[in-house]
Amino acid sequence: MPPRHQADVPGLVERARAGEARAVARLISLVEDESPLLRQVTAALAPHTGRAQVLGLTGAPGVGKSTTTNALVRELRAAGKRVGVLAVDPSSPFSGGALLGDRIRMQDHAGDPDVYIRSMASRGHLGGLAWSTPQAVRVLDAAGCDVVVVETVGVGQSEVEVAGLADTTLVLLAPGMGDGIQAAKAGILEVGDVYVVNKADRDGADQVRRDLRSMIALADRPDDGWKPPIVKTVAQAGEGLAELVVEVDRHHAWLKQTGELRARRTRRARAEVEAIALASLRRSWGDWSDGGDRSGHGGLDELAAAVAAGETDPWAAADRLLEQVRA
Amino acid sequence: MPPRHQADVPGLVERARAGEARAVARLISLVEDESPLLRQVTAALAPHTGRAQVLGLTGAPGVGKSTTTNALVRELRAAGKRVGVLAVDPSSPFSGGALLGDRIRMQDHAGDPDVYIRSMASRGHLGGLAWSTPQAVRVLDAAGCDVVVVETVGVGQSEVEVAGLADTTLVLLAPGMGDGIQAAKAGILEVGDVYVVNKADRDGADQVRRDLRSMIALADRPDDGWKPPIVKTVAQAGEGLAELVVEVDRHHAWLKQTGELRARRTRRARAEVEAIALASLRRSWGDWSDGGDRSGHGGLDELAAAVAAGETDPWAAADRLLEQVRA
Repeated sequence: MPPRHQADVPGLVERARAGEARAVARLISLVEDESPLLRQVTAALAPHTGRAQVLGLTGAPGVGKSTTTNALVRELRAAGKRVGVLAVDPSSPFSGGALLGDRIRMQDHAGDPDVYIRSMASRGHLGGLAWSTPQAVRVLDAAGCDVVVVETVGVGQSEVEVAGLADTTLVLLAPGMGDGIQAAKAGILEVGDVYVVNKADRDGADQVRRDLRSMIALADRPDDGWKPPIVKTVAQAGEGLAELVVEVDRHHAWLKQTGELRARRTRRARAEVEAIALASLRRSWGDWSDGGDRSGHGGLDELAAAVAAGETDPWAAADRLLEQVRA
Repeated sequence: MPPRHQADVPGLVERARAGEARAVARLISLVEDESPLLRQVTAALAPHTGRAQVLGLTGAPGVGKSTTTNALVRELRAAGKRVGVLAVDPSSPFSGGALLGDRIRMQDHAGDPDVYIRSMASRGHLGGLAWSTPQAVRVLDAAGCDVVVVETVGVGQSEVEVAGLADTTLVLLAPGMGDGIQAAKAGILEVGDVYVVNKADRDGADQVRRDLRSMIALADRPDDGWKPPIVKTVAQAGEGLAELVVEVDRHHAWLKQTGELRARRTRRARAEVEAIALASLRRSWGDWSDGGDRSGHGGLDELAAAVAAGETDPWAAADRLLEQVRA
């Protein structure tokens, strides 16, 4: 294998578009590793993106996210869809578990050239999930996936982040997991487009559904006319998945019809462009601090030291920093 | 009371420095409300800051943060210190509870002109805790407080944020609260300079201390030579507070001696300057998007729409955004 900085990017993109799994894997590695070629990769992908339906799937540990993703992929494959899965785990145990997770998942879809599954750790200097995942989605989109499922563990902020990445966000719950509390957790009630009560053969599933319904009614959701459905599934047995796909497609049709699909994707792109621009500014401030002061003014570290010493105030320091950007 | 934008800022700062509680309150309101005078306030305070010892105090709900803060203030007052307290609650119930919290706390220190206590909700357009709290610390610092205690509820990211604000971070735990789990929560083991096992008259306090000791040993902490002490307290009864103050002062002396105090305050100022600069850039991008496009290039919204449509890629769009900043 040639060193990464020598990769033939246009060739890789061509081969990925032809469905070659190794080329897809290589491109995702390039974006995940923040390769110097990242920029070239993104530019080469851009004209081939925007076709895939992007689903976010999130929920607390133990609700059955992987099983549900697996069952959902089976359902989508039965309908002839080409599917990509990105399993993103922002918590620490992942970098070791990634390969194992891949292998377990692959057993069901091994040898199927129309399913691409990839685990991603959300490491990276530039901001984890929010940064590398949209790039990886773009690879799968360009590679001709009809549907891309982004699966994340619901810890802290990640529910809200996954909602920012997806056209349709699926929030999973299960009976017996602290019910009210798990649903009331930051973000869960606000971000779901479709709710899934998995393990619905267990006691309490109807209660979870009822509680969820009333909590969603009270939540601070956008007043856009979409009433999120709640689907009961037993993913392990494949039950309820057909209904889930129906609801997901109904949401997608609603997104298109109302113009909300375009609005969401534009918001997504806005956040991404802004993140890239801010990272670039941060890098330049870092560079100046390292001695590359170009303007005779102090770099960020020098300005910060002056603020800490009370010699200047943070607003004046910020002005001087921005003068450098504009210089 | 005159409208806020007519406040006599230099006069307020003079009166705050003379210890007038109403002037302190007014200045904190100005920074908390992101008044147009914020900038002027910060500039007027700058020469009078850098003297106060800033303590962060955090922990999960129920460990006894308010009681501990209260007992700590009593201890510091007994030593003749002038004390400021900022109680920051980033969770939702606070905006209503702020006044009640103030009143309960004030009962102990009512009429003491050398204690200033203030509850803050972490609302605000510019980023909550990370933004308004350092400004409020600056007010109390300039008002002559020897010690400023910033108390935050330990939810999600806030432990890590409070560590970024303080010279010395106190992390509180208590027996019977999920022990291992509460300590292993993101950040807790990494950010504490002094650990407090409160409610130490309850069963399990020694076990919490032992578990904590071994977990801290395994945590990914800076290799700077500081071994965080673990102090047992019964804040309700005032027990252990003298020892806590000794450990806090020992840490402060260590910070000074190693140069780490200056390094921490510079890092803090760096983050603050950067946040102000980025907020200013964001505002200008917003303005251009609203039709104030100055350069003939598209504003951020227009660029984002082009990215969403696959007409350009996010890197090229970020370049164009930065060209506008530099124009």
